[in-house]
Amino acid sequence: MGEKTTMSDKVSFTVVPEGTVTTPKGFRAGGLHCGLKKTERYDLGAILCDVPASAAGVYTLNAFQAAPLRVTQESIAHSGKLQAMIVNSGNANACTGQQGEDDARAMRAASAKALGVAEHHVGVTSTGVIGELLPMSKVLSGIEQLPAKVKADGGEDFCQAILTTDLVQKMTCVRVVVGGKEVHIAGAAKGSGMIHPNMATMLGFMTTDVAIESEYLQLLLSRITDSTFNMITVDGDTSTNDMVVVMASGLAGGDSLHPGHPDWEAFAAGFQYVGEYLAKAIARDGEGATKLIETTVIGAESDDAARKIVKSIIGSSLVKSAVYGADANWGRIIAAVGYSGQPVNVNTVDIRLGDIAVLEQSRPVKFDEEAALAYLKTDTIQIHVNLHMGEGKATGWGCDLTYDYVRINAAYRT
Amino acid sequence: MGEKTTMSDKVSFTVVPEGTVTTPKGFRAGGLHCGLKKTERYDLGAILCDVPASAAGVYTLNAFQAAPLRVTQESIAHSGKLQAMIVNSGNANACTGQQGEDDARAMRAASAKALGVAEHHVGVTSTGVIGELLPMSKVLSGIEQLPAKVKADGGEDFCQAILTTDLVQKMTCVRVVVGGKEVHIAGAAKGSGMIHPNMATMLGFMTTDVAIESEYLQLLLSRITDSTFNMITVDGDTSTNDMVVVMASGLAGGDSLHPGHPDWEAFAAGFQYVGEYLAKAIARDGEGATKLIETTVIGAESDDAARKIVKSIIGSSLVKSAVYGADANWGRIIAAVGYSGQPVNVNTVDIRLGDIAVLEQSRPVKFDEEAALAYLKTDTIQIHVNLHMGEGKATGWGCDLTYDYVRINAAYRT
Repeated sequence: MGEKTTMSDKVSFTVVPEGTVTTPKGFRAGGLHCGLKKTERYDLGAILCDVPASAAGVYTLNAFQAAPLRVTQESIAHSGKLQAMIVNSGNANACTGQQGEDDARAMRAASAKALGVAEHHVGVTSTGVIGELLPMSKVLSGIEQLPAKVKADGGEDFCQAILTTDLVQKMTCVRVVVGGKEVHIAGAAKGSGMIHPNMATMLGFMTTDVAIESEYLQLLLSRITDSTFNMITVDGDTSTNDMVVVMASGLAGGDSLHPGHPDWEAFAAGFQYVGEYLAKAIARDGEGATKLIETTVIGAESDDAARKIVKSIIGSSLVKSAVYGADANWGRIIAAVGYSGQPVNVNTVDIRLGDIAVLEQSRPVKFDEEAALAYLKTDTIQIHVNLHMGEGKATGWGCDLTYDYVRINAAYRT
Repeated sequence: MGEKTTMSDKVSFTVVPEGTVTTPKGFRAGGLHCGLKKTERYDLGAILCDVPASAAGVYTLNAFQAAPLRVTQESIAHSGKLQAMIVNSGNANACTGQQGEDDARAMRAASAKALGVAEHHVGVTSTGVIGELLPMSKVLSGIEQLPAKVKADGGEDFCQAILTTDLVQKMTCVRVVVGGKEVHIAGAAKGSGMIHPNMATMLGFMTTDVAIESEYLQLLLSRITDSTFNMITVDGDTSTNDMVVVMASGLAGGDSLHPGHPDWEAFAAGFQYVGEYLAKAIARDGEGATKLIETTVIGAESDDAARKIVKSIIGSSLVKSAVYGADANWGRIIAAVGYSGQPVNVNTVDIRLGDIAVLEQSRPVKFDEEAALAYLKTDTIQIHVNLHMGEGKATGWGCDLTYDYVRINAAYRT
């Protein structure tokens, strides 16, 4: 933490230890318990900006997109700006019909009033059980208490408020220099189950104090989504509520950032880092997970083919179970490559587990089973696949499949 | 068992209690232990026909198709006939390179010699661990013992020989009248894990004594595969070794069957029944499974859309975990419909669990939670989805996701 991370000679950023979504200038945040979760944990949170911030978002492609996502998109479409993001956990307000849409709008209106901002500058989002109406009296009384809870050091409280079955908070912050000024990019996320994002991941919130138009912010967010939030899977189930929203206050001062700016790539690298950090944190904290599985495919016909092969591997229940059991079962990895539907040369595949080669040119390599076992008992397992066919490459993240995943999901509603 | 199953006024067949792959005239079968499995269970089996039988097969679309599948296809391509199918369990002979191909050929040659049939009338197949070479001395000495083991009442022994982590034998037999003569159609299968067939399922063996050219047999097999073997999933992992082979001895006497024959549809119905029976048996005996999940989608835009939606539902780890936990969590079902990538009208979806309506026109129905719990504790769970969009329909089968699935697969090789 805190060390300089150099991406290339010209592109660098610095991780800010203990940075949160309120580290970028102009942001406050907070959380509270309003009664949606059965225990006393926080279930309502907000990020508030001192000014209307340039905003961008990516949303689930699930046909049953939840009501709050539509309301948030409507707000951003109005003028490309958001001043507040409201989130509740414990109830997804998904598949709730017209009443759900009305409730999402009521949540937006009440938040706008309570926080003193324009209604079209408020976004709302929900996560939790699908198909149950929001208990609006609890939500609305919670919203009334928000102004007192939203503060400069409320980043961690906000993180608590967005968790469902997550075990750990997920947040990070980096510092980048743009036009001679220090700017910050921060992010917070929740994940855990129903994680197989298609366009966005569960819930991600990014803040920055750089000055940037919303169209460029959207460009950046869309650019990183395919290599970060869309490259993770916990269980292959794409949620109805996936969304990542980013807000840029511009309060760091200095240049307005745009693609031709000399510091655009430095900022983009920091932005990418935050997205990737959150994505990996979601995968590692997948429901029941004990290990992060990082899979890299190189030598594919195209980046797209590499991405699909990575997702086939990290999505395989058999690979995930084998990693849980520390079993160097590369046969399941190659089977997942084979059913990915992507072009492969069946004679030229290399597979490594960490540094341990297990397959070379599609031929089994005699490897040290004890060393493999020791490696597979660590908490981060790297699977490398080289197809030796082209220049396509991709990396993605998943987690092991464990007894606890089954336990958690066998009784989620009850 | 044994009762007349009428498909329509003109199409009927009779289930033969305790029928096996040797019930059709001309077939013998057997199994033995040659040392591929660590315990004393059978691991080598054969089906032998008195005459070269018309043959047809369907094979996995996994790019890493195992060596024996290529050898079997080569045999069938020679003259459309097979007289013997040899199978070993405990080792898949997949991803084993040129040596694996040589071993599959050696298995075929040795079997032809031992059983006294032409080499191009022998098919071979393997199931078990991927990426390890077959211990050929064990296989070859087992093959030498096969002639003494292959007998008219050896259908159950054969069934034992093809199992890996399966808990139960899977076989059935029906009787159909073709041109005034009774003919039989029988089948045996193994399944369990790495079950998400694409073109065929794990291993299926069908025998019949009807007279039929191999091209018509292939027509029938391909026709039923899409609605039976290809409509099951245990874990979404498509194996390198999936194969279904059917052999027709013609020894029942009587007409040679062809698509214009008056009894073609009756035979096809019996054939379909055997395929569906085996497919359901594989799904119910999925690794760790405690329940069969039968999912039917109607009202889709097309049959193809319905099939994809069915597979999205039965493939969802969250739906599978909820069924294990007897949790009527229809939100996960509708989420799986939504991420299937198929056209859906988000306002017109009905969902029933057995007879219990939980969603109507996309609106939650107040249902009796206790009745739902009681239903979800039974061993066959039916999920019905009506999209109210068109005439497309499909049915598929899966199983619940349990602690035991994880336990079995966390240490399969070891």
